[in-house]
Amino acid sequence: MVQTLFSDTIVALATPPGVGALAVVRLAGPDAVGLIAGVFSKKNLAAQPGHTLHYGTIRDPDGGALIDEVVVALYRAPRSFTREDAVEISTHGSDYVVRQLLALLLRRGARLAEAGEFTKRAFLNGALDLAQAEAVADLIAADSALSHQVALNQLRGGFSQELRTLRGRLVTFASLLELELDFGEEDVEFADRTGLRALLGEVADRVAALLRSFELGNVIKNGITVVIAGRPNAGKSTLLNALLREERAIVSAIPGTTRDFIEDEVSLDGLRFRFVDTAGLRDDPADEVEAIGVQRTRQRIGQAALLLYLFDLTELTPAQVQAEIGALTAAHPALPVLAVGNKLDLASGEQLAGFDGFAVDGTAAVRLAAARGQGLEALQTALLARVRGAGLAGHAGATIVTNVRHARALAVAAEHLAAVRAGLDAGRGTELLAADLRHALGALGEITGEISSDDLLTSIFTQFCIGK
Amino acid sequence: MVQTLFSDTIVALATPPGVGALAVVRLAGPDAVGLIAGVFSKKNLAAQPGHTLHYGTIRDPDGGALIDEVVVALYRAPRSFTREDAVEISTHGSDYVVRQLLALLLRRGARLAEAGEFTKRAFLNGALDLAQAEAVADLIAADSALSHQVALNQLRGGFSQELRTLRGRLVTFASLLELELDFGEEDVEFADRTGLRALLGEVADRVAALLRSFELGNVIKNGITVVIAGRPNAGKSTLLNALLREERAIVSAIPGTTRDFIEDEVSLDGLRFRFVDTAGLRDDPADEVEAIGVQRTRQRIGQAALLLYLFDLTELTPAQVQAEIGALTAAHPALPVLAVGNKLDLASGEQLAGFDGFAVDGTAAVRLAAARGQGLEALQTALLARVRGAGLAGHAGATIVTNVRHARALAVAAEHLAAVRAGLDAGRGTELLAADLRHALGALGEITGEISSDDLLTSIFTQFCIGK
Repeated sequence: MVQTLFSDTIVALATPPGVGALAVVRLAGPDAVGLIAGVFSKKNLAAQPGHTLHYGTIRDPDGGALIDEVVVALYRAPRSFTREDAVEISTHGSDYVVRQLLALLLRRGARLAEAGEFTKRAFLNGALDLAQAEAVADLIAADSALSHQVALNQLRGGFSQELRTLRGRLVTFASLLELELDFGEEDVEFADRTGLRALLGEVADRVAALLRSFELGNVIKNGITVVIAGRPNAGKSTLLNALLREERAIVSAIPGTTRDFIEDEVSLDGLRFRFVDTAGLRDDPADEVEAIGVQRTRQRIGQAALLLYLFDLTELTPAQVQAEIGALTAAHPALPVLAVGNKLDLASGEQLAGFDGFAVDGTAAVRLAAARGQGLEALQTALLARVRGAGLAGHAGATIVTNVRHARALAVAAEHLAAVRAGLDAGRGTELLAADLRHALGALGEITGEISSDDLLTSIFTQFCIGK
Repeated sequence: MVQTLFSDTIVALATPPGVGALAVVRLAGPDAVGLIAGVFSKKNLAAQPGHTLHYGTIRDPDGGALIDEVVVALYRAPRSFTREDAVEISTHGSDYVVRQLLALLLRRGARLAEAGEFTKRAFLNGALDLAQAEAVADLIAADSALSHQVALNQLRGGFSQELRTLRGRLVTFASLLELELDFGEEDVEFADRTGLRALLGEVADRVAALLRSFELGNVIKNGITVVIAGRPNAGKSTLLNALLREERAIVSAIPGTTRDFIEDEVSLDGLRFRFVDTAGLRDDPADEVEAIGVQRTRQRIGQAALLLYLFDLTELTPAQVQAEIGALTAAHPALPVLAVGNKLDLASGEQLAGFDGFAVDGTAAVRLAAARGQGLEALQTALLARVRGAGLAGHAGATIVTNVRHARALAVAAEHLAAVRAGLDAGRGTELLAADLRHALGALGEITGEISSDDLLTSIFTQFCIGK
């Protein structure tokens, strides 16, 4: 039996507000079962075991007003999300019913849960560590296969396990250093300096790798911005529509999920691409209006992860394409570029031959006919390869850091690990080494919440929705 | 064991779409448990009893992708809403997770439920009659104490029971009449004509009472429109705000229920009042702009259930008030009026004495000081009394018809019952009497669905949301 830390019982609506078939009101705390038993008809819920379902009615015992026919799900401590006694009440999906039920439970002694309070209790009662708790919010917000898999991996403790391993290895050495301090005057060395240096190298490498994964993590969480540039009538809108068509069909085939669909986002192989269309770039940039257009396109290119330059195979020569891309990316030499030739179906053999072997930035140009949907698959493959080549995609199996707080803590840990290494090289005293090692351990421990403060917990959990 | 009629298994999201802590996906049909067992880890759900909860993970057995950590609620036929095997899956409240889960279950053989299909199955499997099924939708839409109580009473079979009693009494006589027809040539009378006449009177009275209750039912479902009229600065906005203040506080004290709150609706004693503010009416209606304002106010009065005429006790005399009300209601002599004198705190003793015993339309005028919140309770009492006096409110305990379809069927029944009575009086033949009685019985039976058609069911259930 887990010792729970809370004496009050919290309640909140757990499903989205609005009209639906069902709404679920959730209670957790020592009096959760007693509270529902006091307003439930038909049988004594207090005598029922956990993990069972009970159909009946809820009635205000004071006024006698019937509130709804419901199904009550009972959970007994410690076998619940928060490790406390818990109850989930499925009502008809009416705001009125939910308000009445919440008001009744509040009158009878429950307290309205704060944002994230159920998950916070799960953390404080040891059901989840902090990184896992944060993954709950990430999972709810996930909107692509990779962001979903990364959040789920983190929720299931993959990241936490890796951090525990790293900390565990450092802790052994840290305690040996602390021991040396206890024997300070005798000038003994319990901790093998060579072994420590090797270990530090391994841990620092892994921390650096996790930090690097944050760039990818950020892309996974926020999507990859691809700016599409090209001359008017190169077919940019046609291409965008062709890319969106399949994705849209998938979204709308499953009703009941009225998600705000952003016109120009598309998910390829689990990665979210945000396509930014730009005004067509004309021949004569001397024209003042055109110059503004070019400038705006360049600004957008500055925010992009990838430039997709679309051109008309029947119109431009390879040299012209190369020149236009050069002009667009002059200020961003490191920006990955993918050149895409459109109107494959209209181009003559001669025109096509001119582009044989044509590559930009080391990557072969894609040829397609957007209006016919021809070559789209090749474009998707090339896009993914280009993004992966730029280090902006990885496997969902590997641990990927997606949380800014975690990235900051890793950066702090990396800094202190480097300081320990430098101290070893400089032959600094045990006290300084131990202090830096403690800071590094502290930073890693903050991620999983082995070390936490009220302020930290408040700042994390108030970002959750109520009922979670 | 109830015989279920369906060979396929349906699935839908049962909670409102959007972000929340939890989402619930619902399955019903012969393969509901088998489908979830095939994608659920940790234990064999197919071997578990009904009314139990199971924590585990859902994984696509084909690709292996993990979809979520979930809690599965199992129901075994016939102990479920539709009387079939049923499953409710609580997932994290993410649209992405819900889409993946729905797609997985569809790939594995479930069919996406149509709007209202779960409730339709409950009806066709005998768990609910048609009036009860319709009450499910009413309950979800209920937004005041009375509309909620009326829907709940109907859901729990109160209305159905009353109709069954009425039909039962008629059926006995109808069968006696049919028996007479079988012996048609022998000119016997099995059915006692005097008894039949008395019975018809009772049933017709009850049907008429139910029909009359529809006017109230409509008010309960759609609210009572109160037009507030009066001169500028009589304090109409102040009064409205004072009335709304308490209600708003109640609504916003319970988060998680982001209901669209209509600025000028307020619920008093369980009845929803919709207050319609009007432009102030000035002295000089000869002014063209003013004339339009008066005309608009009159139009709105035409749609009102009650006119609240607000006046400044320090400004007008009883005669002026009476004259202005008379002008406003000239075209609607039957409209209930409540006169309300504002600025009680500023009025002199003389001014107040002038209004002693002042009544409009037989109802004493209310005096209050809206800006101070003084006298609001008296206004609420007077409003409710005025509305009840006009037959527009009743007790939640009594059966109240709120459904247009039911009202129409009752009207048809009333018509045929009247025809039977007229036939008896005119000494018409058994055949004609029996035919009319059959029509009356048919109309009553349509309400509960003892008699129903595919078209009727389709028209009812497609108004439901998906997942219900």
